[in-house]
Amino acid sequence: MKVLVVGASGTIGRLVIKEFAPRHEIIEVGKNQGRHRADITSEESIRQLFNQVGKVDAIIAVAGNVHWGPLKEMTAEQFELGLREKLMGQVNLTLIGRHFLNDGGSITLTSGSLSHDPYVGGASFTTVNSAIDGFVRGAAIELEHGRRINSVSPNVLKESWGTYGAGVPGTDPVPGEKVVLAYRKSVEGQQTGQTYRVW
Amino acid sequence: MKVLVVGASGTIGRLVIKEFAPRHEIIEVGKNQGRHRADITSEESIRQLFNQVGKVDAIIAVAGNVHWGPLKEMTAEQFELGLREKLMGQVNLTLIGRHFLNDGGSITLTSGSLSHDPYVGGASFTTVNSAIDGFVRGAAIELEHGRRINSVSPNVLKESWGTYGAGVPGTDPVPGEKVVLAYRKSVEGQQTGQTYRVW
Repeated sequence: MKVLVVGASGTIGRLVIKEFAPRHEIIEVGKNQGRHRADITSEESIRQLFNQVGKVDAIIAVAGNVHWGPLKEMTAEQFELGLREKLMGQVNLTLIGRHFLNDGGSITLTSGSLSHDPYVGGASFTTVNSAIDGFVRGAAIELEHGRRINSVSPNVLKESWGTYGAGVPGTDPVPGEKVVLAYRKSVEGQQTGQTYRVW
Repeated sequence: MKVLVVGASGTIGRLVIKEFAPRHEIIEVGKNQGRHRADITSEESIRQLFNQVGKVDAIIAVAGNVHWGPLKEMTAEQFELGLREKLMGQVNLTLIGRHFLNDGGSITLTSGSLSHDPYVGGASFTTVNSAIDGFVRGAAIELEHGRRINSVSPNVLKESWGTYGAGVPGTDPVPGEKVVLAYRKSVEGQQTGQTYRVW
């Protein structure tokens, strides 16, 4: 399969590519690096990307920032970062990308366990991740020609524990190799409208 | 209790006010009508509202539009309507309103059953409603001084069936009097971080 990975240079992106590369043709997309670049907050940028790469069998998104910080200091602008990047970025990629998705192809988005496991500082993540899982439920029943959409909801990866662990005490981080299996299930399976929780 | 109802002229708003009025002091807020007016997409408008009405014991939000329409024709701009109005409107009301909420006071937001019961045309509702329930889970653990936050997730009301029923075939509409009980549980109870499903 021809698999487009948006967020190719991130921790999950690199692990996904390593897992998929032996069996699939990978198109790596970065925001600021690599051969193919796209800013998923821009519809125009996404259109340019697909005009370059053409039709694909799978779209995997592991991109988009969200603001981490105490709710009592959070501004609407900070809160909107995650809506614009992680949520609308992935929604944009879906709304445009489905026109470049072969029949039976899949879209796999990324949410995260904070949707149901809130921590102080993470209210925007909890909101955005819940929204992404919701979008997948809603969009799945409207995609045509056997096209599918799922989300992977990972906990903090062991590989990222040094960066994020201090903010989520008591969390049991998951190995990256377990997280990438969920992306494989979404792409190589036939389910749709699902959220694969890796917690 | 002093209870602020934002969206006072809507179907649910009117039913909530009827239910609460015998026991509470109600401050009715409309977007375009009534004594107190606020546009919850504007932080400035919300600040002006609270500067007028002062501190309250409960904030109830039943406001904010969302775009209904087939995903295959939906634009990012249409999708963003619900994020700006129903989601960020209620988030804004929470971020600003908590400074005007007495200790032990409550915030009650409104989501909806489409979060888990998707219909063709409702992908934006499914996303926004999921996000609101998520926001409540995240925000609940960060509110201080006993302040609480919950959401009510109603199905289509019997009172609104004429307007919305055609889009959701097979749905069993719920009586408004049952929906308002959930708002009462949120305001007069002590739970927090909950979503009361009235389905």
